[in-house]
Amino acid sequence: MKKLINNPNDVVKEMIEGLLSAHPSYLRKLDNIDVIVRKDAPVEGKVGLVSGGGSGHEPAHAGYVGYGMLDAACPGAVFTSPTPDQIYEAIKAVDGGKGVLLIIKNYTGDVMNFEMAREMAQMEGIEVDEVIVNDDVAVENSTWTQGRRGIAGTVFVHKIAGAKAQEGASLQEVKRVAEKVIANVRSMGMALTPCTVPAAGKPSFTLAEDEMEIGIGIHGEPGTHREKIKPADEIVEHLMEKIINDLPYKENDEVAVMINGLGATPLMELYVANRKVAEILESKKIKVYKTYVGEFMTSLEMSGFSITLLKLDEELKTLLDAKADTPAFKQL
Amino acid sequence: MKKLINNPNDVVKEMIEGLLSAHPSYLRKLDNIDVIVRKDAPVEGKVGLVSGGGSGHEPAHAGYVGYGMLDAACPGAVFTSPTPDQIYEAIKAVDGGKGVLLIIKNYTGDVMNFEMAREMAQMEGIEVDEVIVNDDVAVENSTWTQGRRGIAGTVFVHKIAGAKAQEGASLQEVKRVAEKVIANVRSMGMALTPCTVPAAGKPSFTLAEDEMEIGIGIHGEPGTHREKIKPADEIVEHLMEKIINDLPYKENDEVAVMINGLGATPLMELYVANRKVAEILESKKIKVYKTYVGEFMTSLEMSGFSITLLKLDEELKTLLDAKADTPAFKQL
Repeated sequence: MKKLINNPNDVVKEMIEGLLSAHPSYLRKLDNIDVIVRKDAPVEGKVGLVSGGGSGHEPAHAGYVGYGMLDAACPGAVFTSPTPDQIYEAIKAVDGGKGVLLIIKNYTGDVMNFEMAREMAQMEGIEVDEVIVNDDVAVENSTWTQGRRGIAGTVFVHKIAGAKAQEGASLQEVKRVAEKVIANVRSMGMALTPCTVPAAGKPSFTLAEDEMEIGIGIHGEPGTHREKIKPADEIVEHLMEKIINDLPYKENDEVAVMINGLGATPLMELYVANRKVAEILESKKIKVYKTYVGEFMTSLEMSGFSITLLKLDEELKTLLDAKADTPAFKQL
Repeated sequence: MKKLINNPNDVVKEMIEGLLSAHPSYLRKLDNIDVIVRKDAPVEGKVGLVSGGGSGHEPAHAGYVGYGMLDAACPGAVFTSPTPDQIYEAIKAVDGGKGVLLIIKNYTGDVMNFEMAREMAQMEGIEVDEVIVNDDVAVENSTWTQGRRGIAGTVFVHKIAGAKAQEGASLQEVKRVAEKVIANVRSMGMALTPCTVPAAGKPSFTLAEDEMEIGIGIHGEPGTHREKIKPADEIVEHLMEKIINDLPYKENDEVAVMINGLGATPLMELYVANRKVAEILESKKIKVYKTYVGEFMTSLEMSGFSITLLKLDEELKTLLDAKADTPAFKQL
């Protein structure tokens, strides 16, 4: 295991310390618990947005805490749901009097713990609602999921619900746009190499030197199948076919595109993939409104990527374009 | 070689196509030559900034083309200098009547080709000047370098000279602040794994499973030594000692910090490294003004990172804080 770490058991604690040192103008941590909140939380008169999940997906989720996106992120142990206590403390810390929306990726542990925290907070009279993101079209049910998994499309939910909350909208309105994103976003990924959870010390699965896994989850969960590595264009064609046919995305639709690196894939290769994505969309007369290429929702040092399409209407375009200022996502 | 590419010989061409598809509001390409310029180039009344180098360092350099940073980037073949023709066409395309500054990383091939292009442009009456970045304290001279190598510190030169140029300053003034950055910036890196140039098909060097290379260059050039992998804190201590003692950075200095991933190192690990960097600076009473953690100057899929310190004064702080809007570097 070649990692730039100290004791594998300290990696989340030390990452959080390094994160706080790096971004003191954006972030602070609650006392005695791993919850990262906006420096100025709670923002009075604004719906609070709370997300989170296992660590190892950086910059998700703490990298998206800031103006126009999240109010709090709860980092669990690596690839492990945050505890109900973490989420409960996050809810209390960001409640600015207009209620709190939980943005949950669809994994059984996450859903269970976020919902437990929601109940705890509701018993204290805080208005809390939730949305569950399930953008991964690869498989129904999976190692840690009932239904479809939530992956990189979640970042569009953070951005757009975050913009709506920043406008001062009601909890109901913020939830409505979050649900609209979820209804219109689809993703699928693949991997060339596995990744190693630090405390485990060895990869959670193996792939032969000439093999890839199609439809992999962001924790290395199995996808649809394994096959010999193919040229990038053929891989993109396969993923795009699954994604486009799922909604389906149709002629004259307008979409935002996210090409997301899983951790070890160079930006060079993500751009090579985007070339084919753009070509396919053009051939289908689906218009690209905006493209994001980079690492948004990673899987430690996994090599691979995912493609996300979000179908836009005028409301979603305006919210996507709204100002955001967080450590990992800035929009002027 | 596990890469998300098509024909290895097409990788730069296809990357550029994917880059242009992704960022049409920021970038355009000159006809018939691989030069990426600001969409609105030339900007009248503004000094034009041209940088570039071999491909494989993405987001450098095209990712920094835009408002408040570069006017043009010249991507060469992978790890290969751009040609004098590319640089010459870039100079002509971004000359807005106030002259052009070339920002060159100190590699023999880059310096030779940028200077040849400079002479070609000067013969046509364009005012052209240059700065050479040599921030890497690891070694004097190296595989492709006389003197010290230019690495991630170059991004601070782009940002600060870019902000000065955006203000409408003269070529002489833009060069002066670029030189001030170069005089005050120091970097050093290390690698856990090598990288593979696509057309070569195999790694340019090897490292044993328990080995790391200290002081490595961004093309895999040898550093100061190889040794057994150590905990992150010990690695950071060594790099920081070399960097801090070089300028030297002293008590009460104020610095910007860049923790730069070389391609395959997860953000989680970069934050673990930053934790120790911040601790060392605090113990030496060197104040951190701003920290950047991410991938700024990569080496394909190399696993490793570099640390950069830039000593700031009031002028450099103001320019560092100025608005920037490029595909890979945004500041509100």
